[in-house]
Amino acid sequence: MERKTVKVGFLGMGTVGSGTLRILEMNREQVAVKAGSEIEVKKILVRNPEKQRDVDVSLELLTTDPAEVLQDPEIDLVIEVMGGTEEARRYIEEALKQKKYVITANKDLMAAAGSELLLQARECRRNIYYEASVGGGIPLIRPLKHSLGANKIIRIMGIINGTTNYILTRMSLYNMDFEGALAEAQEKGFAEQDPSSDLEGRDAAYKLSILAGLAFNSRIHIGDVYTEGISGISKRDIFYASELGFAVKLLAIGEELPGGLALRVHPTLIPRTHPLAAVHNENNALYVVGNAVGEVMFYGLGAGAMPTGSSVVADLIDAARNINYGIEDGIMEIDFQDKAVVPVEELLSSFYLRLQAEDQPGVFAALATAFGEDKVSLDMIIQKRSTEGVAEIVLVTHAVEERFFYRALDRIKAFPTTRKINSVFRVIEK
Amino acid sequence: MERKTVKVGFLGMGTVGSGTLRILEMNREQVAVKAGSEIEVKKILVRNPEKQRDVDVSLELLTTDPAEVLQDPEIDLVIEVMGGTEEARRYIEEALKQKKYVITANKDLMAAAGSELLLQARECRRNIYYEASVGGGIPLIRPLKHSLGANKIIRIMGIINGTTNYILTRMSLYNMDFEGALAEAQEKGFAEQDPSSDLEGRDAAYKLSILAGLAFNSRIHIGDVYTEGISGISKRDIFYASELGFAVKLLAIGEELPGGLALRVHPTLIPRTHPLAAVHNENNALYVVGNAVGEVMFYGLGAGAMPTGSSVVADLIDAARNINYGIEDGIMEIDFQDKAVVPVEELLSSFYLRLQAEDQPGVFAALATAFGEDKVSLDMIIQKRSTEGVAEIVLVTHAVEERFFYRALDRIKAFPTTRKINSVFRVIEK
Repeated sequence: MERKTVKVGFLGMGTVGSGTLRILEMNREQVAVKAGSEIEVKKILVRNPEKQRDVDVSLELLTTDPAEVLQDPEIDLVIEVMGGTEEARRYIEEALKQKKYVITANKDLMAAAGSELLLQARECRRNIYYEASVGGGIPLIRPLKHSLGANKIIRIMGIINGTTNYILTRMSLYNMDFEGALAEAQEKGFAEQDPSSDLEGRDAAYKLSILAGLAFNSRIHIGDVYTEGISGISKRDIFYASELGFAVKLLAIGEELPGGLALRVHPTLIPRTHPLAAVHNENNALYVVGNAVGEVMFYGLGAGAMPTGSSVVADLIDAARNINYGIEDGIMEIDFQDKAVVPVEELLSSFYLRLQAEDQPGVFAALATAFGEDKVSLDMIIQKRSTEGVAEIVLVTHAVEERFFYRALDRIKAFPTTRKINSVFRVIEK
Repeated sequence: MERKTVKVGFLGMGTVGSGTLRILEMNREQVAVKAGSEIEVKKILVRNPEKQRDVDVSLELLTTDPAEVLQDPEIDLVIEVMGGTEEARRYIEEALKQKKYVITANKDLMAAAGSELLLQARECRRNIYYEASVGGGIPLIRPLKHSLGANKIIRIMGIINGTTNYILTRMSLYNMDFEGALAEAQEKGFAEQDPSSDLEGRDAAYKLSILAGLAFNSRIHIGDVYTEGISGISKRDIFYASELGFAVKLLAIGEELPGGLALRVHPTLIPRTHPLAAVHNENNALYVVGNAVGEVMFYGLGAGAMPTGSSVVADLIDAARNINYGIEDGIMEIDFQDKAVVPVEELLSSFYLRLQAEDQPGVFAALATAFGEDKVSLDMIIQKRSTEGVAEIVLVTHAVEERFFYRALDRIKAFPTTRKINSVFRVIEK
């Protein structure tokens, strides 16, 4: 079979673009063997051609005119690594119209418009590859589409934000406080100067919607993902959790329940023996439960130029093979459905609660009674010797519909003996 | 595009075959969507049609004549789940000649003859899919071929035998002894009645040769895999390892070093914070280091009817798509090379050593001197109060060429004060 050189245009040349180019350089021969043809970078759209970059690029390749990438009939494949949603979306739509294959590392865009773009790609008989849009270098999209293709996915549960996992690891294993851990993460480049999207769980929610869309074959609206961040977690909670046998992690969880999908990102206590509990520092992992395979987990670096570039080049190899064979067999996400979403209030959860109460006779009994009235039963309790008349009580409930827990909690808040509700986190046993 | 029903013949219908059929039944609709066509099981070769099976099979599908599967021109695809090597190999060769695609779950055969069979498949313009031959339900083959295709693989390191991992977990976390843990594993079906292939590391060595072949693009001869089993591990070693911050695991390790490949299966001390240390019970995991992606890990059940069936059906989906498109783009292992293998004596390793010596002045100094003479330096030492004049000494060395360690150890063995060398294990720090 005749193999032509596959010609590639880049949209953007920042961190991920540079990593991609470096891999194409470093592993050129192997990539050509796997792709079945040489890969030639023909044009790179950048905002500022004068800018200093992490990688050597011939100036002739750079352009500020998108048409030089999008309208060039010789370019088979466009790699979008510019970020942002509006412009990137227009360019990708145009690339598809021009019958180009598309690779994107754009999480925000795939979360917001992935199903529409995939539909357009199918109509154009092309494809969009987006392994790099979520999980950096960890193979997630391809395993969900292919390797686990025989499974109905029951649940996905992931540590998919490196910044928050780094902070929680430093707090857990090195006894740092939140502020210190965040400052260190910023210093090491694991947290941005404005880290709010990471800390508040929004970044994880975007990634969850991409993964859940694929896992459950459904269009996901980001507003349907219940989201809580990590700023309420104190060292004291991590200490108690550890005493009870749990690690504290920011988990993104997607489930298909009889009533519909449940989608949420929140701090979670998981047993220390759970494989996700061993995911430390800036690493990410996705734990998947399928109805045939049981439980599998994918682990690695969820960000960074080279890991993310590794995913871009893996997509490039697949795309080049399809281009060479003149076929398109890649789009399996063709039957995205709109599925009902179960509100978080109706989900069954176990809760960890830490509160401070006056150390008087009957205080604990009143607490237990308030929970009992809403059928919240208690699984574990810690109460240590009180200081200055104030007792700190930590308890873990059995699973209960969330609204019942919160109804009981509202009554407990109103007790004259309750000094403070310090923290409420969900607990997942497996 | 017109899509025809893909017709499948089975060779064998034991545990994996039954799991495969059950998944095809249970997830029929989804499999058809992903495969792009219906899947029809047309014939099943069995030894004994009367035998009771775990799955309902119409008697008309069963045959004892291999030709009814291999010679039927309507059968597009043969699934070999019969095991054994000689007969299975002949049938697969015949199936390829008859222009059928092949899926196999046969670890022994792929380890022994994988590169020859893949070569034949390429010549026949067909393919052999073998995700199920190693790692049960965990996606390993496809990620190594595709998702990590942009990487030069530097090292693979895996817990790829469930029996031994179950035993070591019971010994570590539940303080059981080796015999008790083995008996429990046999009772639960995680160990065979004759468990020697698992316990001695041979099963892991076979799997390593399949994985290393793919990772390093090389023909691997099973005799080149240095293999040690777990029967020398005592509760006392696990106790000391834990005190030093390590877990004890049977690891299969493949590396590409400047001098060639290093391939070995042996008990290993790894830091408790390493992700492989958190792989408990009968679970398996493969940890891969690539020159672009860094470190990734794949985790899950490495055996069992449904997990392994999940891999067979994933392969079936891929094969069906290729059949429908009339193309074969799957064979990437086309350039298997013969690479030099570095003998284990020349590898750099850190060692854990436990020995008993007479508690006399100068004994430890003599030990340290013996190591020093061979440039073995010590990293950690434990010596507890001696009982009845015998001291138990545990030490961990820095990395050293193995033959120097063993040369020093030979001298230490010969000391009149040395009572017993209890155990020697390798240590991997990351």
